[in-house]
Amino acid sequence: MINEFELINQLKSLVQGQDSAVTLGIGDDAAVIDPALLPAGHKMVIATDTLVIGRHFLADDNPEDIGHKVLAVNLSDMAAMGAMPQWLLMNLTLPKIDGQWIEGLSRGISGLLKKFKVELIGGDTTSGPLSIGFTVIGLARQPLKRSDACVDDLIVVSGELGSAAFALHNPGRSSHCDQQLKRPQPRFDVSEAVKNFAGAMIDVSDGLLADLNHICQASGLGAQVELEKIPVHSAIKVDLKWRDYALSGGDDYQLCFTIRSDDQSLLPSDCTVIGHMHAGSGVTVYDKGHRIQVNRLGFDHFG
Amino acid sequence: MINEFELINQLKSLVQGQDSAVTLGIGDDAAVIDPALLPAGHKMVIATDTLVIGRHFLADDNPEDIGHKVLAVNLSDMAAMGAMPQWLLMNLTLPKIDGQWIEGLSRGISGLLKKFKVELIGGDTTSGPLSIGFTVIGLARQPLKRSDACVDDLIVVSGELGSAAFALHNPGRSSHCDQQLKRPQPRFDVSEAVKNFAGAMIDVSDGLLADLNHICQASGLGAQVELEKIPVHSAIKVDLKWRDYALSGGDDYQLCFTIRSDDQSLLPSDCTVIGHMHAGSGVTVYDKGHRIQVNRLGFDHFG
Repeated sequence: MINEFELINQLKSLVQGQDSAVTLGIGDDAAVIDPALLPAGHKMVIATDTLVIGRHFLADDNPEDIGHKVLAVNLSDMAAMGAMPQWLLMNLTLPKIDGQWIEGLSRGISGLLKKFKVELIGGDTTSGPLSIGFTVIGLARQPLKRSDACVDDLIVVSGELGSAAFALHNPGRSSHCDQQLKRPQPRFDVSEAVKNFAGAMIDVSDGLLADLNHICQASGLGAQVELEKIPVHSAIKVDLKWRDYALSGGDDYQLCFTIRSDDQSLLPSDCTVIGHMHAGSGVTVYDKGHRIQVNRLGFDHFG
Repeated sequence: MINEFELINQLKSLVQGQDSAVTLGIGDDAAVIDPALLPAGHKMVIATDTLVIGRHFLADDNPEDIGHKVLAVNLSDMAAMGAMPQWLLMNLTLPKIDGQWIEGLSRGISGLLKKFKVELIGGDTTSGPLSIGFTVIGLARQPLKRSDACVDDLIVVSGELGSAAFALHNPGRSSHCDQQLKRPQPRFDVSEAVKNFAGAMIDVSDGLLADLNHICQASGLGAQVELEKIPVHSAIKVDLKWRDYALSGGDDYQLCFTIRSDDQSLLPSDCTVIGHMHAGSGVTVYDKGHRIQVNRLGFDHFG
C-alpha cells in the first residue's frame, strides 16, 4: 500500500508555500479556503480532468512530460474560462511506487505550478492502474462561457493547430511539433489579453471542429470556417493529412474564441481570425470559396 | 469513445436542480461558484478521493452499491471536517458504456446526493480501467482539524466499529454488517451535533488505530484507548478476529473525535467515549487494565 501522506508531501515539497486564503491542506481530511480572503468581485472557477495510461499517455513516456501534460490539459480549462488558476487538488492512482518516476512526474507538475503560481492544496493517492486526475480552482472576474457567441462574431484561434496530431502520427519528424504534443502550454497569455472583449471561448482539446461545435451548440448558432485561414506550422505540410490534423487533430490546447469584428485590432499577434458565426447550426468549412464535406466532428475522421 | 456530455447529463438528470451560487456547470469547461453568494462567515472545505476497481470495489459488485459507497466515502471527509457538503465534481473512468450499469451507479450516487442536498456541478469522463473520483466542496463555519486535540480530552467514536471488516471477511453472515460495508452512511448527524464542542475529528476509513494516530501526529499527543469500551455489534463476536476488526478494520466511516470531559453530557446517544489523549505520542491500547501489543497501525495487521 502507498504511503499517501509521504507521497503527497514529496510532491508538495516540490511546489511553493502556503497561500493565505488556504488555512488547511495536505494532511487533513480536506483543504479549507476562506471566501472572505478572496479578491473582491471574483468568481471561483472549478474544473476537473482525469488522464489514464494507454489513452492519454503511455507507460514508457517520460514521466516529466506526463506530469507537464496532464496538468497543462487541466490548466487549459482555466484559460478557456478566462480564469487564472490558484489551487490544485491531485488524484494519483499508481500501480507501484517508483521513486525516480514520481520525481520525474513531480518535476513536470511543479514546473507548471511555479510558472503560473498555482498551489497544490490537497489530494489523494491510491494503488491501481496508472491515472492522474486534477481538480483546479481558479478566479475570474467574468468567466467566459461557450454560450456567449453572437451572430457575425469573428472566430479566432491562438497559435497553430494540428501540430500535436502531426507529431502523434509522425514522431521525431519535427521537434517543434513533438514539443507541442509533449509539452503543450496553456494559453493564459492569450486569455488574459482577450478576456475583456472575447465572447465565447473554449480550448482546442478534441479538435477544432468538435470544440467549435460546442460553442455552436451552447450559443445556438452556426460557424463558418475558412480552411486556408487556419494557422498551421509549415512542418506539418509534409503529411498529406495536414488538413485533417488542423481541423480535427486534438491535443493542441490552443484557444478558440469569438470577438466582435470591431475588436479585431485588439488581438495579440499570434491570434488568427478563421471565420465567423452565423444564424443556424453546426460548423461548415470552406476551402477557397467551396464548401467541403466534413463527415465527423472529431479527431482523425475528417473525410 | 465515451460521449461524456450525454453521460454526465444522464447522471445530472438523476439529481436535483441548479444552485443559485453556481452560475455554470456541466457542459462548459468548468463550473463557476460566486463567493459573494455564499452564506457569510463560512469557509469552503474541499476534499477529493479516487476509488478504483479491484481495490475499493469489484467488477461484479452491485453498481448501485458502488455508487453509494464511493460517494459516501468522499462525503465522509466532509463530516470529518464538521462541514456540510454542497457541490460535487465527478471523474469517471469506464472501460465501456453499459447503460444498465451506469443507471445503477447513478441511482446509488443520486440517493446520497438527494439525502444531503448536494449538487453535481461538473465532471469528466474518460475510457480506461474503472475508477471513480469525486471532489466535494462543503461549507463550515469552523472546520474541525486533526490538530486540535488537547491533553486529557476524551476520545469518542460514533456508532460501532469493525462491522465492515467483519462483513468483508464473513460475507452473508450478518445482514447488518453487510449493509455497513456496502452502504456506509456519512455521519453528518453526529458531526452536526458535536461540531461546536468537538476538538480534533477524523473519519475511520483506514481503521481506528491508524486514523486516531493521525490525530496524535497532528496534535503532537498520544492516545490511550480501552479495548473493552470500543463499541462493536454483537454479530461480529462470532469471529475470533473481532478485536482486530474493531481496532484496525477500515471502511466503517464512523467519526472519531475528541471532546473536553466537561462536554460528555452533550454527546448524541450513539457516541461512545473509548479513551483519552495524553502528553506523548502514538496510540496505546489497554485490555482490562493491561497494555496490549499492537504491531501495526492499520487494517488487518493487528497482532
